[in-house]
Amino acid sequence: MSTPRVVVFSGGVGGARFVRGLAAVLPASALTAVVNTGDDFEHWGLYVSPDVDTVMYTLAGLAHEARGWGLADESFGALALLERYGEAAWFSIGDRDLATHLARTRGLKAGETLSQVTDRLRRALGAQVPIVPMADAPCPTLIETESDGVLGFQEWFVHRRSAPTVRAVRFGADPPPAPGVLEALAQAELVLFGPSNPYVSLDPIVTRPGVRAALDRVPVLAVSPILGGQAVKGPLARMIPELTGEPASASAVARHYAPLLDGFVVERGDEALGFDVPVLPTATLMSDRAAAAALARDVLRFAEELAR
Amino acid sequence: MSTPRVVVFSGGVGGARFVRGLAAVLPASALTAVVNTGDDFEHWGLYVSPDVDTVMYTLAGLAHEARGWGLADESFGALALLERYGEAAWFSIGDRDLATHLARTRGLKAGETLSQVTDRLRRALGAQVPIVPMADAPCPTLIETESDGVLGFQEWFVHRRSAPTVRAVRFGADPPPAPGVLEALAQAELVLFGPSNPYVSLDPIVTRPGVRAALDRVPVLAVSPILGGQAVKGPLARMIPELTGEPASASAVARHYAPLLDGFVVERGDEALGFDVPVLPTATLMSDRAAAAALARDVLRFAEELAR
Repeated sequence: MSTPRVVVFSGGVGGARFVRGLAAVLPASALTAVVNTGDDFEHWGLYVSPDVDTVMYTLAGLAHEARGWGLADESFGALALLERYGEAAWFSIGDRDLATHLARTRGLKAGETLSQVTDRLRRALGAQVPIVPMADAPCPTLIETESDGVLGFQEWFVHRRSAPTVRAVRFGADPPPAPGVLEALAQAELVLFGPSNPYVSLDPIVTRPGVRAALDRVPVLAVSPILGGQAVKGPLARMIPELTGEPASASAVARHYAPLLDGFVVERGDEALGFDVPVLPTATLMSDRAAAAALARDVLRFAEELAR
Repeated sequence: MSTPRVVVFSGGVGGARFVRGLAAVLPASALTAVVNTGDDFEHWGLYVSPDVDTVMYTLAGLAHEARGWGLADESFGALALLERYGEAAWFSIGDRDLATHLARTRGLKAGETLSQVTDRLRRALGAQVPIVPMADAPCPTLIETESDGVLGFQEWFVHRRSAPTVRAVRFGADPPPAPGVLEALAQAELVLFGPSNPYVSLDPIVTRPGVRAALDRVPVLAVSPILGGQAVKGPLARMIPELTGEPASASAVARHYAPLLDGFVVERGDEALGFDVPVLPTATLMSDRAAAAALARDVLRFAEELAR
């Protein structure tokens, strides 16, 4: 297997594990992770970037594997006392996790860009793969709900437990991609969409100005976040019918990406997409590091076959 | 014993324990603690008010008794990770303690004054005695050193472990006292100076505009922070010779306060002050709550005798 230059687009836990799988089979220098910042928000006065942190913690081997967010060996002393002070307690931030938000917030206030501070923090944690936030400026994902008007992403996702029915997803701003995104795409020989939510994790990246045009000149493969009609994590399986009127399926995700897509990786049994795109059925559930590395190997081999 | 309206001036741990002693023998409604904010500073982007917090935690029964700062049952996960991120780690902030600084910083940014946010936080922690910061606006204590120029208080005290010889103490601003300070003094029948450092803990309070004049019309008693030539805690025993050329003694502290002083409370054996002020020799070491309450009772009885 040759080592192509790969850019991978990622949301939170599923994407993060896929990036770690790729990092196990590719040199870090061949890989760039471009990460969703649409669900970034301010909490307790701190700038929180959940997907960036999940990718960073996962690559550094510090993530809490079972929970899917935050750090392993975490305590929640600050959260408990903040609740006593009457602060919002619906978004759980652990004590060690606080350090990341404090350091990032301080860096941003001192004039660093989000991509600069991200690079500094991931290096401090020993994550080898470059992590580029999709944009330095805010690009808030907004959820138009049936019952509760427009909600910020975390308000809808965490505070309301994604209960309000989604009518549409839109973005509150349209900033350019962060420095490094278009540069990495220009050099990429392969772009991979991790198994993340297309509407709220990858669309924010894909819709940054210039990204679509950059994707036209490079093979794009996506890994389905839907397995047998179910999402491994998160509200996607409910969002697909709410947003498209169709049942949740790998096929619905593939059609969402269709104009960009050169190949689609699905769980075995999900290969009937109903339209014409090369499909790789394989084991896509990344239950551990070995499974993620095996998936990464499968996806890279599929890309090689398609390139022939 | 009658219950006079008492205002107590306090720095950190010694003052805080004295306030707790008073709170054990007086109704909370008869007591107001005015607390030094000269060593407040910004750390990790948060507004930290060490003496206010020590008084608040001590009154709420949450203070770490042996350490003299911060909370009992504390963890330091954030500190460790912040150090890994290259942030300054010389000032230890625990994880639960962080909650206080986060809530205060958020309140201040939302437009609350320091006295408003202090009142809200101490109520949330269940501290009954009103705690009034000496000023709402910054009044930074500056340490003029022999070897290292002018240092901020925490820079000198914590970062440099109060090693550089002190030539003078001054304040970087001259804000009015916070709302409530002059009002409490106007209603007070007795003002007590806790056993705090006169130069860096109580002078900042005493020198707020209007405070000296208010003290002229009410009996003022002070408790010596020097016992047998030694300070219970902190750099005072070294500062006295550095600032006055005289050995550390209760007498040096009394003379510092002299024009304001109607009586002075010292450890038994320290009663020879060398000038004419009523003295109460008693047990002043507040090794536990009972000792602090006994000292408070002694001081109030002394005030009653002086008033006869």
